[in-house]
Amino acid sequence: MKVQHHTQIPSEAVTMEGASKCHVRYLIGPLDLAPNFAMRQFTVEPGGCTPKHLHAYEHEIYILEGQGEALEGTISRPLIVGDVVYVAPDEVHQFRNTGDVPLIFLCLIPNSSNGKQVTVVPESPNNLSSCC
Amino acid sequence: MKVQHHTQIPSEAVTMEGASKCHVRYLIGPLDLAPNFAMRQFTVEPGGCTPKHLHAYEHEIYILEGQGEALEGTISRPLIVGDVVYVAPDEVHQFRNTGDVPLIFLCLIPNSSNGKQVTVVPESPNNLSSCC
Repeated sequence: MKVQHHTQIPSEAVTMEGASKCHVRYLIGPLDLAPNFAMRQFTVEPGGCTPKHLHAYEHEIYILEGQGEALEGTISRPLIVGDVVYVAPDEVHQFRNTGDVPLIFLCLIPNSSNGKQVTVVPESPNNLSSCC
Repeated sequence: MKVQHHTQIPSEAVTMEGASKCHVRYLIGPLDLAPNFAMRQFTVEPGGCTPKHLHAYEHEIYILEGQGEALEGTISRPLIVGDVVYVAPDEVHQFRNTGDVPLIFLCLIPNSSNGKQVTVVPESPNNLSSCC
Protein backbone atom coordinates (compact mmCIF):
# COMPACT_ATOMS: atom_id res chain seq x y z
CA MET A 1 0.00 0.00 0.00
CA LYS A 2 1.23 3.47 -0.84
CA VAL A 3 0.05 6.38 1.30
CA GLN A 4 1.50 9.73 0.29
CA HIS A 5 0.37 13.33 0.52
CA HIS A 6 -0.03 14.85 -2.92
CA THR A 7 2.41 17.64 -2.04
CA GLN A 8 5.17 15.00 -1.66
CA ILE A 9 4.82 14.16 -5.34
CA PRO A 10 6.74 16.41 -7.78
CA SER A 11 4.82 18.97 -9.81
CA GLU A 12 5.82 19.39 -13.45
CA ALA A 13 4.90 22.06 -15.98
CA VAL A 14 2.54 20.86 -18.70
CA THR A 15 4.39 21.54 -21.93
CA MET A 16 1.79 20.27 -24.38
CA GLU A 17 0.81 22.71 -27.14
CA GLY A 18 -2.10 24.87 -26.00
CA ALA A 19 -1.47 24.49 -22.26
CA SER A 20 -1.11 27.71 -20.30
CA LYS A 21 -0.11 28.06 -16.63
CA CYS A 22 -0.68 24.31 -16.00
CA HIS A 23 1.19 21.89 -13.78
CA VAL A 24 0.64 18.17 -13.18
CA ARG A 25 1.48 15.66 -10.44
CA TYR A 26 1.45 11.97 -11.37
CA LEU A 27 -0.16 10.64 -8.17
CA ILE A 28 -0.64 6.96 -9.08
CA GLY A 29 0.54 5.32 -12.26
CA PRO A 30 3.01 3.04 -13.96
CA LEU A 31 5.71 3.57 -11.30
CA ASP A 32 3.28 2.10 -8.75
CA LEU A 33 2.59 -0.80 -11.14
CA ALA A 34 -1.07 0.27 -11.22
CA PRO A 35 -2.42 -2.18 -13.79
CA ASN A 36 -5.39 -0.35 -15.35
CA PHE A 37 -5.50 3.43 -14.93
CA ALA A 38 -3.51 6.44 -13.73
CA MET A 39 -4.42 9.26 -11.31
CA ARG A 40 -3.04 12.70 -12.13
CA GLN A 41 -3.66 16.03 -10.37
CA PHE A 42 -3.67 19.20 -12.45
CA THR A 43 -3.24 22.77 -11.21
CA VAL A 44 -4.28 25.58 -13.54
CA GLU A 45 -3.30 29.05 -12.34
CA PRO A 46 -5.72 31.99 -12.72
CA GLY A 47 -6.01 32.89 -16.39
CA GLY A 48 -4.63 29.52 -17.48
CA CYS A 49 -6.12 26.60 -19.35
CA THR A 50 -5.48 23.07 -20.50
CA PRO A 51 -5.14 22.46 -24.24
CA LYS A 52 -8.32 22.24 -26.29
CA HIS A 53 -7.95 18.71 -27.59
CA LEU A 54 -9.45 15.28 -28.17
CA HIS A 55 -8.30 11.67 -28.03
CA ALA A 56 -9.77 8.18 -28.23
CA TYR A 57 -9.81 7.60 -24.46
CA GLU A 58 -11.84 8.94 -21.55
CA HIS A 59 -11.18 11.28 -18.61
CA GLU A 60 -12.72 10.88 -15.14
CA ILE A 61 -12.34 14.18 -13.28
CA TYR A 62 -13.09 15.56 -9.80
CA ILE A 63 -12.74 19.28 -8.97
CA LEU A 64 -10.76 19.74 -5.71
CA GLU A 65 -10.19 23.51 -5.45
CA GLY A 66 -11.01 26.72 -7.28
CA GLN A 67 -13.50 27.42 -10.02
CA GLY A 68 -13.47 27.26 -13.78
CA GLU A 69 -15.24 26.14 -16.87
CA ALA A 70 -15.24 23.00 -18.94
CA LEU A 71 -15.52 23.51 -22.66
CA GLU A 72 -17.27 20.75 -24.59
CA GLY A 73 -16.36 21.93 -28.03
CA THR A 74 -17.66 25.52 -27.80
CA ILE A 75 -20.21 24.83 -25.02
CA SER A 76 -19.11 26.18 -21.63
CA ARG A 77 -20.06 24.40 -18.40
CA PRO A 78 -19.19 26.07 -15.05
CA LEU A 79 -17.07 24.09 -12.59
CA ILE A 80 -17.06 24.33 -8.80
CA VAL A 81 -15.45 22.28 -6.02
CA GLY A 82 -17.04 18.86 -5.77
CA ASP A 83 -18.03 18.67 -9.43
CA VAL A 84 -17.57 15.41 -11.28
CA VAL A 85 -16.75 15.49 -15.00
CA TYR A 86 -16.84 12.57 -17.39
CA VAL A 87 -15.26 13.22 -20.78
CA ALA A 88 -16.09 10.41 -23.19
CA PRO A 89 -13.61 9.23 -25.84
CA ASP A 90 -13.30 11.58 -28.84
CA GLU A 91 -15.04 14.56 -27.17
CA VAL A 92 -13.30 17.91 -27.73
CA HIS A 93 -12.59 19.34 -24.27
CA GLN A 94 -10.72 22.04 -22.43
CA PHE A 95 -10.58 23.29 -18.82
CA ARG A 96 -10.10 26.94 -17.93
CA ASN A 97 -9.56 28.71 -14.63
CA THR A 98 -12.10 31.53 -14.36
CA GLY A 99 -11.30 32.45 -10.74
CA ASP A 100 -8.64 34.19 -8.68
CA VAL A 101 -7.10 31.10 -7.09
CA PRO A 102 -5.65 27.92 -8.61
CA LEU A 103 -8.10 25.48 -10.17
CA ILE A 104 -7.03 22.03 -8.96
CA PHE A 105 -8.57 18.78 -10.17
CA LEU A 106 -7.95 15.07 -10.42
CA CYS A 107 -7.98 13.63 -13.92
CA LEU A 108 -7.73 9.87 -14.41
CA ILE A 109 -6.98 8.08 -17.65
CA PRO A 110 -6.72 4.43 -18.67
CA ASN A 111 -3.29 2.87 -19.19
CA SER A 112 -4.46 2.05 -22.71
CA SER A 113 -4.04 5.78 -23.46
CA ASN A 114 -0.27 5.24 -23.67
CA GLY A 115 0.87 6.02 -27.18
CA LYS A 116 -2.60 7.04 -28.36
CA GLN A 117 -2.86 10.07 -30.59
CA VAL A 118 -3.84 13.42 -29.04
CA THR A 119 -5.20 16.06 -31.43
CA VAL A 120 -4.92 19.70 -30.38
CA VAL A 121 -7.77 21.88 -31.67
CA PRO A 122 -6.69 25.41 -32.65
CA GLU A 123 -8.14 28.20 -30.51
CA SER A 124 -10.53 30.63 -32.14
CA PRO A 125 -9.49 34.33 -31.90
CA ASN A 126 -12.28 34.92 -29.34
CA ASN A 127 -11.06 32.17 -27.06
CA LEU A 128 -7.44 33.20 -27.37
CA SER A 129 -8.20 36.53 -25.74
CA SER A 130 -9.69 34.91 -22.62
CA CYS A 131 -6.98 32.39 -21.88
CA CYS A 132 -3.68 31.51 -23.53
CA MET B 1 -19.57 15.35 -21.40
CA LYS B 2 -21.20 14.94 -18.02
CA VAL B 3 -20.74 17.68 -15.42
CA GLN B 4 -22.54 17.05 -12.15
CA HIS B 5 -22.00 18.04 -8.55
CA HIS B 6 -21.38 15.00 -6.37
CA THR B 7 -24.32 15.95 -4.13
CA GLN B 8 -26.68 15.49 -7.11
CA ILE B 9 -25.77 11.79 -7.21
CA PRO B 10 -27.67 9.51 -4.81
CA SER B 11 -25.92 8.22 -1.70
CA GLU B 12 -26.50 4.60 -0.73
CA ALA B 13 -25.68 2.72 2.45
CA VAL B 14 -22.83 0.23 2.08
CA THR B 15 -24.34 -3.08 3.11
CA MET B 16 -21.29 -5.30 2.66
CA GLU B 17 -20.39 -7.43 5.67
CA GLY B 18 -17.97 -5.54 7.92
CA ALA B 19 -19.01 -2.05 6.77
CA SER B 20 -20.10 0.35 9.51
CA LYS B 21 -21.59 3.83 9.05
CA CYS B 22 -20.56 3.91 5.35
CA HIS B 23 -22.28 5.39 2.34
CA VAL B 24 -21.27 5.44 -1.32
CA ARG B 25 -22.07 7.56 -4.39
CA TYR B 26 -21.37 6.06 -7.82
CA LEU B 27 -19.99 9.19 -9.50
CA ILE B 28 -18.85 7.78 -12.84
CA GLY B 29 -19.35 4.22 -14.00
CA PRO B 30 -21.22 1.81 -16.24
CA LEU B 31 -24.29 4.10 -16.55
CA ASP B 32 -22.00 6.69 -18.13
CA LEU B 33 -20.60 3.98 -20.44
CA ALA B 34 -17.16 4.64 -18.93
CA PRO B 35 -15.14 1.93 -20.67
CA ASN B 36 -12.32 1.16 -18.23
CA PHE B 37 -12.83 2.23 -14.60
CA ALA B 38 -15.38 3.59 -12.13
CA MET B 39 -15.21 6.55 -9.71
CA ARG B 40 -17.00 6.11 -6.39
CA GLN B 41 -17.10 8.48 -3.41
CA PHE B 42 -17.30 6.98 0.08
CA THR B 43 -18.41 8.71 3.26
CA VAL B 44 -17.52 7.07 6.57
CA GLU B 45 -19.14 8.66 9.62
CA PRO B 46 -17.16 9.15 12.87
CA GLY B 47 -16.55 5.75 14.45
CA GLY B 48 -17.27 3.94 11.21
CA CYS B 49 -15.14 1.85 8.87
CA THR B 50 -15.09 0.05 5.56
CA PRO B 51 -14.85 -3.75 5.62
CA LYS B 52 -11.45 -5.32 6.19
CA HIS B 53 -11.12 -7.22 2.94
CA LEU B 54 -9.07 -8.14 -0.10
CA HIS B 55 -9.66 -8.78 -3.80
CA ALA B 56 -7.69 -9.33 -6.98
CA TYR B 57 -8.03 -5.73 -8.24
CA GLU B 58 -6.60 -2.38 -7.21
CA HIS B 59 -7.96 0.78 -5.55
CA GLU B 60 -6.85 4.32 -6.39
CA ILE B 61 -7.94 6.64 -3.59
CA TYR B 62 -7.85 10.37 -2.78
CA ILE B 63 -8.85 11.74 0.65
CA LEU B 64 -11.26 14.69 0.26
CA GLU B 65 -12.41 15.48 3.81
CA GLY B 66 -11.86 14.36 7.40
CA GLN B 67 -9.17 12.17 8.89
CA GLY B 68 -8.73 8.48 9.40
CA GLU B 69 -6.43 5.55 9.12
CA ALA B 70 -5.70 3.00 6.43
CA LEU B 71 -5.03 -0.49 7.67
CA GLU B 72 -2.66 -2.56 5.53
CA GLY B 73 -3.29 -5.88 7.23
CA THR B 74 -2.59 -4.84 10.85
CA ILE B 75 -0.34 -1.88 9.98
CA SER B 76 -2.05 1.49 10.53
CA ARG B 77 -1.28 4.49 8.31
CA PRO B 78 -2.78 7.89 9.21
CA LEU B 79 -4.87 9.65 6.56
CA ILE B 80 -5.39 13.38 6.08
CA VAL B 81 -7.01 15.51 3.37
CA GLY B 82 -4.94 15.43 0.20
CA ASP B 83 -3.49 11.97 0.81
CA VAL B 84 -3.23 9.57 -2.09
CA VAL B 85 -3.58 5.84 -1.41
CA TYR B 86 -2.76 3.04 -3.81
CA VAL B 87 -3.99 -0.41 -2.75
CA ALA B 88 -2.45 -3.10 -4.95
CA PRO B 89 -4.38 -6.24 -5.91
CA ASP B 90 -4.63 -8.83 -3.10
CA GLU B 91 -3.61 -6.45 -0.29
CA VAL B 92 -5.75 -6.70 2.85
CA HIS B 93 -7.08 -3.20 3.52
CA GLN B 94 -9.57 -1.23 5.59
CA PHE B 95 -10.34 2.49 6.12
CA ARG B 96 -11.47 3.89 9.46
CA ASN B 97 -12.68 7.31 10.49
CA THR B 98 -10.63 8.41 13.51
CA GLY B 99 -12.01 11.96 13.65
CA ASP B 100 -15.13 13.87 14.63
CA VAL B 101 -16.37 14.68 11.13
CA PRO B 102 -17.14 12.47 8.12
CA LEU B 103 -14.18 10.91 6.33
CA ILE B 104 -14.85 11.34 2.61
CA PHE B 105 -12.70 9.87 -0.15
CA LEU B 106 -12.74 8.91 -3.79
CA CYS B 107 -12.06 5.26 -4.54
CA LEU B 108 -11.66 4.12 -8.14
CA ILE B 109 -11.74 0.55 -9.38
CA PRO B 110 -11.31 -1.09 -12.79
CA ASN B 111 -14.37 -2.37 -14.64
CA SER B 112 -12.65 -5.77 -14.63
CA SER B 113 -13.54 -5.95 -10.91
CA ASN B 114 -17.13 -6.80 -11.89
CA GLY B 115 -17.93 -10.26 -10.59
CA LYS B 116 -14.51 -10.72 -8.97
CA GLN B 117 -14.45 -12.36 -5.55
CA VAL B 118 -14.17 -10.14 -2.46
CA THR B 119 -12.94 -11.82 0.73
CA VAL B 120 -13.88 -10.22 4.04
CA VAL B 121 -11.25 -10.72 6.76
CA PRO B 122 -12.72 -11.26 10.25
CA GLU B 123 -11.98 -8.49 12.74
CA SER B 124 -9.75 -9.31 15.71
CA PRO B 125 -11.37 -8.60 19.13
CA ASN B 126 -9.06 -5.58 19.57
CA ASN B 127 -10.13 -4.02 16.29
CA LEU B 128 -13.80 -4.69 16.92
CA SER B 129 -13.74 -2.46 19.96
CA SER B 130 -12.42 0.54 18.00
CA CYS B 131 -14.81 0.46 15.08
CA CYS B 132 -17.73 -1.74 14.16
